[in-house]
Amino acid sequence: MRHFISANQLTVEEIMRLFETADWYRGTGLELKQQLFAANLFFEPSTRTKSSFIIAQRKLGMEVLDFHTETSSVKKGESLYDTAKTFESIGANLLVVRHQSDSWFEKLKGNISIPMINAGAGTAEHPTQCLLDLMTIYQEYRTFNDLKIVIVGDIKHSRVAQSNAYALKALGAKVFFSAAPGFEAYQLDFPYISIEEAVNRCDAIMLLRTQHERHDQRSAFMTDYLENYGLTKGREKQMKKHAIILHPAPINRGVEIDSDLVECERSRIFKQMENGVYIRMAIITNILQEWGIMNENTIEKCKTAISSR
Amino acid sequence: MRHFISANQLTVEEIMRLFETADWYRGTGLELKQQLFAANLFFEPSTRTKSSFIIAQRKLGMEVLDFHTETSSVKKGESLYDTAKTFESIGANLLVVRHQSDSWFEKLKGNISIPMINAGAGTAEHPTQCLLDLMTIYQEYRTFNDLKIVIVGDIKHSRVAQSNAYALKALGAKVFFSAAPGFEAYQLDFPYISIEEAVNRCDAIMLLRTQHERHDQRSAFMTDYLENYGLTKGREKQMKKHAIILHPAPINRGVEIDSDLVECERSRIFKQMENGVYIRMAIITNILQEWGIMNENTIEKCKTAISSR
Amino acid sequence: MRHFISANQLTVEEIMRLFETADWYRGTGLELKQQLFAANLFFEPSTRTKSSFIIAQRKLGMEVLDFHTETSSVKKGESLYDTAKTFESIGANLLVVRHQSDSWFEKLKGNISIPMINAGAGTAEHPTQCLLDLMTIYQEYRTFNDLKIVIVGDIKHSRVAQSNAYALKALGAKVFFSAAPGFEAYQLDFPYISIEEAVNRCDAIMLLRTQHERHDQRSAFMTDYLENYGLTKGREKQMKKHAIILHPAPINRGVEIDSDLVECERSRIFKQMENGVYIRMAIITNILQEWGIMNENTIEKCKTAISSR
Repeated sequence: MRHFISANQLTVEEIMRLFETADWYRGTGLELKQQLFAANLFFEPSTRTKSSFIIAQRKLGMEVLDFHTETSSVKKGESLYDTAKTFESIGANLLVVRHQSDSWFEKLKGNISIPMINAGAGTAEHPTQCLLDLMTIYQEYRTFNDLKIVIVGDIKHSRVAQSNAYALKALGAKVFFSAAPGFEAYQLDFPYISIEEAVNRCDAIMLLRTQHERHDQRSAFMTDYLENYGLTKGREKQMKKHAIILHPAPINRGVEIDSDLVECERSRIFKQMENGVYIRMAIITNILQEWGIMNENTIEKCKTAISSR
Repeated sequence: MRHFISANQLTVEEIMRLFETADWYRGTGLELKQQLFAANLFFEPSTRTKSSFIIAQRKLGMEVLDFHTETSSVKKGESLYDTAKTFESIGANLLVVRHQSDSWFEKLKGNISIPMINAGAGTAEHPTQCLLDLMTIYQEYRTFNDLKIVIVGDIKHSRVAQSNAYALKALGAKVFFSAAPGFEAYQLDFPYISIEEAVNRCDAIMLLRTQHERHDQRSAFMTDYLENYGLTKGREKQMKKHAIILHPAPINRGVEIDSDLVECERSRIFKQMENGVYIRMAIITNILQEWGIMNENTIEKCKTAISSR
Repeated sequence: MRHFISANQLTVEEIMRLFETADWYRGTGLELKQQLFAANLFFEPSTRTKSSFIIAQRKLGMEVLDFHTETSSVKKGESLYDTAKTFESIGANLLVVRHQSDSWFEKLKGNISIPMINAGAGTAEHPTQCLLDLMTIYQEYRTFNDLKIVIVGDIKHSRVAQSNAYALKALGAKVFFSAAPGFEAYQLDFPYISIEEAVNRCDAIMLLRTQHERHDQRSAFMTDYLENYGLTKGREKQMKKHAIILHPAPINRGVEIDSDLVECERSRIFKQMENGVYIRMAIITNILQEWGIMNENTIEKCKTAISSR
């Protein structure tokens, strides 16, 4: 692929190949011989996604250009387009963009001549998160066929619910939604089930983050949210024997999930983060290969990775 | 040179030699064998200049120390001098400083024993920007003799107007100013012409950024600014056949220049940014050579640069 | 050691061995062959400590992950624990933590499986600062036996007074406190002396930073602070012939010390900062050896360090 903007742009075969590459990176390393610069343009706060991209880039031997809206010319009113064009001009070889606008890519695509990756832009797309979610499920079951998967929570405001749902369906899974009143997205064609039904029937429960930042529903509704719509310890006990729990984080402990369940045996929450680094390495590799930048002549075996655990 | 503080400190010969070195870096690379730390002390927001310095430093194989006023001891009231002395003490080998004070260097020069580069400090100096502007014009015409060059816009508040004007004059060009009422700087001895005359007569039009941050002239004056004093599409048509457009960016699209002209054929705006990296590499090289840090024994050929375009 | 949380966890022998390693790093370098990631999680502003850790890490060949509370998920309410677990999950091999809570380590220790270093957390501990203070005194006298050392200033709010006092005592020194009314910490068992007695009797004067940020004692009290309780030029003249001055910085010039004394002959203030890099390299080395990550097989001689002075 030339750019990675949406999970929907990938075929099932392409997704599977990215999983393979990501798995390969788990054990092995390689490093670009040339000096390539990745510019991470994050116009919204992020810990996980940004740091994950940085590690992925460094593991591939790329240079990293950091960008802080707080200390940048964005403070002087500079647009995304001019910022992106600036980084292209000064030598960036890859742009990773997090932006609040859904149409961010439309403004750039004709005029920016380097690869771009969507790191969670707009209200509806966060494709690298989508892929790491899928990869974590696949790692568990080695197939998506006939898996029952429920996406639970603030579907309306989620950046991953929609793309996850369609991608999982394309991969062969049966997808459900479970949402509190006001959190539904009825324009998406998936059946709604209660949280009780969800824990009883599904092989994977994908919790969403309740986006405090994006709506004002606090008060009584939020106070009882966990009990009424979230994953309590009682509900966890009703889950199927091998069923797993996912959450993109940051987690609202005690809201969408009981704090004690965050690291329970079924939880794959921190596994997801680990997978995020490898899938991002795979995506960057795929793109740089497509652009002819990364090939057998331009890479070498890198310093062996090490785990201190 | 020991430090690079002002464009005025350079002779014509030195400027030409910096252009040559910068051009050489466009195609080639080298890397310091030793581990050298560059500390970029930016006390004001910047995207372009800071990132450009970072890329220049990394291309030379230097380590980069970032400094954010928001997360630093400046919040506890620490002075520029103590900050600079701190970075010297912990091992910085080069300081790149952006600061609001005109006299920043006076406070440091006797007591800091490592090279310093002005990255746009005070109200009147931004010497690396000056050099990249000059380099971009030189690249076009291979001479400055008899070139007619006009500097257009907010001359009074500009960090580059003055040094550009004097440097261009020293290099043999004929320099004009064009400014809206209130934007003039009559203490500088250059003739003023209207924007109409500017587009008709000049070989290069150097637009300045209207410094919203530094004055309050908004309202009606700003609304009609483009039409009355800026580069409209109509005026661009009146420009001489080979005449070019420069702007230091960030650009106020629709204020000093029509948005459609930012990437027109005459525009060298993004070329300026590209040149900025190479001229900064040349400046750093020149300084490190002068200090005896960089010489034939301390460098090696670096990873070949690559363009993904 | 597995983690470095408190100066008190070290024996006298361990402290001496860290000084030796730090001294060795002053002249020599080595670099890890493997790619190791250090995550610097600073939840409070810092220039010196953070940059010092970054330089120490880079000199050891480690990758550095920067973390800005301003641009991170902490803005979305993420806890220290979840942030730390995230960095562990995405591949950090070392956490360096500055945090406002005294109990930060309690929350992490059972569940984080990578080494952690306290970079000034809580109200009472800043152990790497403590060690660099001790090292600077040791460098001067090559012993602590019978040295008279006074800690002067805002003892109550200091992160280093307590650990410095106990460590110095354990090392054989005679320790005094000198504090303005309200700045005492009587729960600590050390004798108080006046600033006059302090300058007359002691071999090292360790000034503390007056923590404007942590209390509201401004006004008249602060105006006369230097004259009444600080190190004036008159008092400096009364100091013993070889006595030295220390201060952890950032310095409030004209409050705890006359501005002219900051770089006087007795001052070791900037020497302390230099030592900070080497002692942090020694601490990281010690920890990585303990975890089996750093050994003869995993290191190589690094690019020779260079001084541009």
